[in-house]
Amino acid sequence: MRTWNHILAAEFVSMMVLLLVIEAAVVEYDWTVDYTYASPDCVEKLVLSINKQFPSPTIHAVEGDTLVVHVTNAIPTEGVVIHWHGIHQRTTPFFDGAAYVSQCPINPGETFTYRFKLDRAGTYFYHGHFGMQRAGGLFGSLIVSLPAYKKEPFSYDAEHSIILNDWWHKSIYEQQLGLTSVPFKFVGEPQSLLIQGRGSYNCSTVAGVPHGSPNCVVCNATNPSCAPHVMPVNPGKTYRLRIASVASLSSLNFILEGHKLTVVQADGRYVKPFQVDNLNVYSGQSYDVLFTANQEPSRNYWAAINIRGRQTSTPTGLAILQYMPNPATLVPTTPAPVSPLWNDTAASVAQAKMIIAKFGHEQAPPKKSDRTLVILCTQNMVDDHVKWALNNISYVARPTPVLAALKYKIRGAFDSKPPSDLPVKDYDVFAPPPPRFRNATSGSPVYVFKKDSVVDVIVQNANTLTPNNSEIHPWHLHGHDFWILGYGEGSFDSQKDPASFNLVDPPVRNTVAVFPFGWVAIRFIANNPGAWPFHCHIEPHFHMGMGTVFAEGVNNIPTLPSQSLGCGLTKRFLRYR
Amino acid sequence: MRTWNHILAAEFVSMMVLLLVIEAAVVEYDWTVDYTYASPDCVEKLVLSINKQFPSPTIHAVEGDTLVVHVTNAIPTEGVVIHWHGIHQRTTPFFDGAAYVSQCPINPGETFTYRFKLDRAGTYFYHGHFGMQRAGGLFGSLIVSLPAYKKEPFSYDAEHSIILNDWWHKSIYEQQLGLTSVPFKFVGEPQSLLIQGRGSYNCSTVAGVPHGSPNCVVCNATNPSCAPHVMPVNPGKTYRLRIASVASLSSLNFILEGHKLTVVQADGRYVKPFQVDNLNVYSGQSYDVLFTANQEPSRNYWAAINIRGRQTSTPTGLAILQYMPNPATLVPTTPAPVSPLWNDTAASVAQAKMIIAKFGHEQAPPKKSDRTLVILCTQNMVDDHVKWALNNISYVARPTPVLAALKYKIRGAFDSKPPSDLPVKDYDVFAPPPPRFRNATSGSPVYVFKKDSVVDVIVQNANTLTPNNSEIHPWHLHGHDFWILGYGEGSFDSQKDPASFNLVDPPVRNTVAVFPFGWVAIRFIANNPGAWPFHCHIEPHFHMGMGTVFAEGVNNIPTLPSQSLGCGLTKRFLRYR
Repeated sequence: MRTWNHILAAEFVSMMVLLLVIEAAVVEYDWTVDYTYASPDCVEKLVLSINKQFPSPTIHAVEGDTLVVHVTNAIPTEGVVIHWHGIHQRTTPFFDGAAYVSQCPINPGETFTYRFKLDRAGTYFYHGHFGMQRAGGLFGSLIVSLPAYKKEPFSYDAEHSIILNDWWHKSIYEQQLGLTSVPFKFVGEPQSLLIQGRGSYNCSTVAGVPHGSPNCVVCNATNPSCAPHVMPVNPGKTYRLRIASVASLSSLNFILEGHKLTVVQADGRYVKPFQVDNLNVYSGQSYDVLFTANQEPSRNYWAAINIRGRQTSTPTGLAILQYMPNPATLVPTTPAPVSPLWNDTAASVAQAKMIIAKFGHEQAPPKKSDRTLVILCTQNMVDDHVKWALNNISYVARPTPVLAALKYKIRGAFDSKPPSDLPVKDYDVFAPPPPRFRNATSGSPVYVFKKDSVVDVIVQNANTLTPNNSEIHPWHLHGHDFWILGYGEGSFDSQKDPASFNLVDPPVRNTVAVFPFGWVAIRFIANNPGAWPFHCHIEPHFHMGMGTVFAEGVNNIPTLPSQSLGCGLTKRFLRYR
Repeated sequence: MRTWNHILAAEFVSMMVLLLVIEAAVVEYDWTVDYTYASPDCVEKLVLSINKQFPSPTIHAVEGDTLVVHVTNAIPTEGVVIHWHGIHQRTTPFFDGAAYVSQCPINPGETFTYRFKLDRAGTYFYHGHFGMQRAGGLFGSLIVSLPAYKKEPFSYDAEHSIILNDWWHKSIYEQQLGLTSVPFKFVGEPQSLLIQGRGSYNCSTVAGVPHGSPNCVVCNATNPSCAPHVMPVNPGKTYRLRIASVASLSSLNFILEGHKLTVVQADGRYVKPFQVDNLNVYSGQSYDVLFTANQEPSRNYWAAINIRGRQTSTPTGLAILQYMPNPATLVPTTPAPVSPLWNDTAASVAQAKMIIAKFGHEQAPPKKSDRTLVILCTQNMVDDHVKWALNNISYVARPTPVLAALKYKIRGAFDSKPPSDLPVKDYDVFAPPPPRFRNATSGSPVYVFKKDSVVDVIVQNANTLTPNNSEIHPWHLHGHDFWILGYGEGSFDSQKDPASFNLVDPPVRNTVAVFPFGWVAIRFIANNPGAWPFHCHIEPHFHMGMGTVFAEGVNNIPTLPSQSLGCGLTKRFLRYR
């Protein structure tokens, strides 16, 4: 639904006059969040859906549009929120959709209206941001195009968009319980990988088709609920492919069989074009890539995703690149594309370093920072539970939105003691935490930054509780894009490493992966008054405490709409006749 | 935890003086509601629990005590409430624990403190009252004893209490989804029946033990998580057995193998003692029965429950009556007790009619009523969904607590048009709804009664959408006990049937079953200012709309605590600096 409306409409001004003067689109949706049945990999399961669709509906809008979404929660007992991943929410921090940070959860039966400006074109997405509801299926694409009068610095004939994720047959309720149980029960590896909500699992139930075989796709092709996603192309034409990952756990590697991919955008920001055969997409990231349909046109090709960074037997997720006029059902007979070895970290780092900003299209960062956080991410024990911690604090959300607590100076809503800017000294990131650092504490920390200050954050990875193990963590910051100044191995050296920072053309984005046993340095300007989660985008990791909250311009937070309040300590503000 | 405190404590009065004058107990609990794993029938499942216990902890208190329960919601995304079934909540209607009637759901992370007086001894229980959370395992016993200076009008040597329910392996999330899906997916019959949270299922996985065999119990006996519940007794002694049912769907029949049961209380109210071999316990009801351990003492005996009113293959739920000093593991070799035929409605009605109030212990009802509702309960279609309706309205909760809407005159919180006191005329209760009555409407009706008025409610059963089918519905009224004036078959005749009402010694209780194709007449005094659900206690039926709200004394509702608010239209009352 797309309705045209007027930003400055006022009753006393003739609508006819206004039409000639100023026009901006309001893109408006009525959404109902509810359970539904879906069989994305041919196994039926309860999923969280919007308007009974899985994946949730794709939003198409134009830069400058105002997006208005009326979200009605029709789930019997669960609250929900919708986070608009990559949208900065300038002047509307209360519409960021992070439960207990920007707003109270929308209660069953309530309708909450999100209303904010899409101030930058790009490939974005939205998803649930309460418990592990994203992993439960609550996500969709948000495609913001340039207005007609603006031109991209690259050309193409048409576009497709796909959203990627990993999929479990176990409910998110059980997944969450396992993660917080003693003994710890991990969610395990996914049963399938989905491209635009379609995947294949358990081919072994089909006689003669081995588990994980691409021939699964043949079997599924006739099942409308799990038939592979199809992208039709015309031979010789060039396409823009918008790729986003909302994976719960997996780092994904995308391959378009036989086709080179030219990366032109990352998280909606321009990068210097570079070509790859396969592309790593970490959860929370998006890429815009160009490809030309220049292969033998008498057949179709695989679009494929595999898991990076974890050793799994999860079958390749497959979709079909359909060369017109071949039928979509002409399934490739070639084997499923193979990605780099799961533990080839060097390849991952090398590709990450290929990404630099496109000259003339992105600003360089300020030369110096006003404050530097070094955040050591460790796996710890808290009261016999396995947790993740940042500088020894494992994040637990408390029921008063941080934004409300800051705006209205509500005491007791989060930890009064500020978290530490620096980790303990001389921590060995190559070993499991020694006994004295094995236990962390739970908390609700908030880092408060001076308005317009320049902040550096070094995210320092480390060994987990398991010897010789360190994992990939994609770190996402709400409300901002940041410059990625550099990656390194081992412990960050605050004396030497800053010298290697790229201050000329670092890429700008909202999600960056920190690699096993390594660190990443980012810089951002704290110029968006509000409270913004900074967290690992892996659902189980965030659920186990791997996150924190950044806040800035706390004296400039706009008045919060009452619909965003009513939970936790904000109840104290209820005043009746 | 039991702490002694003082009702009338005031700072300026010496505590020493008060101690001599008046004393009342405050029974205080700290509860955390969370998911946990439980295997009540040897199949592991996620359940809703309090302090990680299933069933939730039993509360023991004394008449006159104040019960204080601090409920912290530790579920990741679900709201919760706790309803105190059978407790009248005089002057504290906001602590009744009915979501969206008496309060907002307790959000994840919040702590809500219930604080109310237990003004009458009896066998009660508590349970979740939001979505189908009771069926998810959120329930426990609430035993209120007489104070030492009062005596029961019967004698016994010791007591046991058991809580009964039915159990599914499918999650309540899937159960709820199925019930609201098109096409309709019923929850089906339970996999097992539990006595005090223990049952047996799937004996067929044990070699040589047929499904449903009592020998299951032998197999389970060594598994601590699903070993049968054991009630030890000393030969020759007399016991008070407190029985309560929180079944989701099933009407249960309780048998104590070889022992007669003397019924002395129903729903905490005195009845004229009568003896039975087996006892029907409808969901939402409790019974206190006496039995004497007068059987051959060298063996143990079965305590058993079977399903009444539905044709099922669910195995008998079994517990063990242990004659001391036999070991608890001495499992009876006798077959599981058999209940009356599932469709022997005449037997059920006959037993229901045996229940009359104990002379001198319960007041007779007023001779006349001020207002009479005749509520026709039908199964209907609403927008292609299968629903239950009362006088053609299928109940849907809306997100503003009715109590808050009444107290603060919030418009739009429930249907402004009052529901009808009478059904359509000449409705044929022996046939499925004819085309013109096939569709019902959804609504949020509230019946408002004049304070202290006497209200009669005739609950009229009817044929479902399936020919020749009518079901048992146990009707529960919050905030009140009512007199059961009579039962009848077919359509209630307002001219003739009142003449048959028992106005002398009708039983007093809070839950009454209406039988297939029949009606039941109840009378109560609307003298408890508040808003009180009146609904079928079968979880799937209430979830499908089989309920309504009664309200009275709306100008006398006390000020609501802010902790009970914050959802729906009450957000409008948020006032900030």
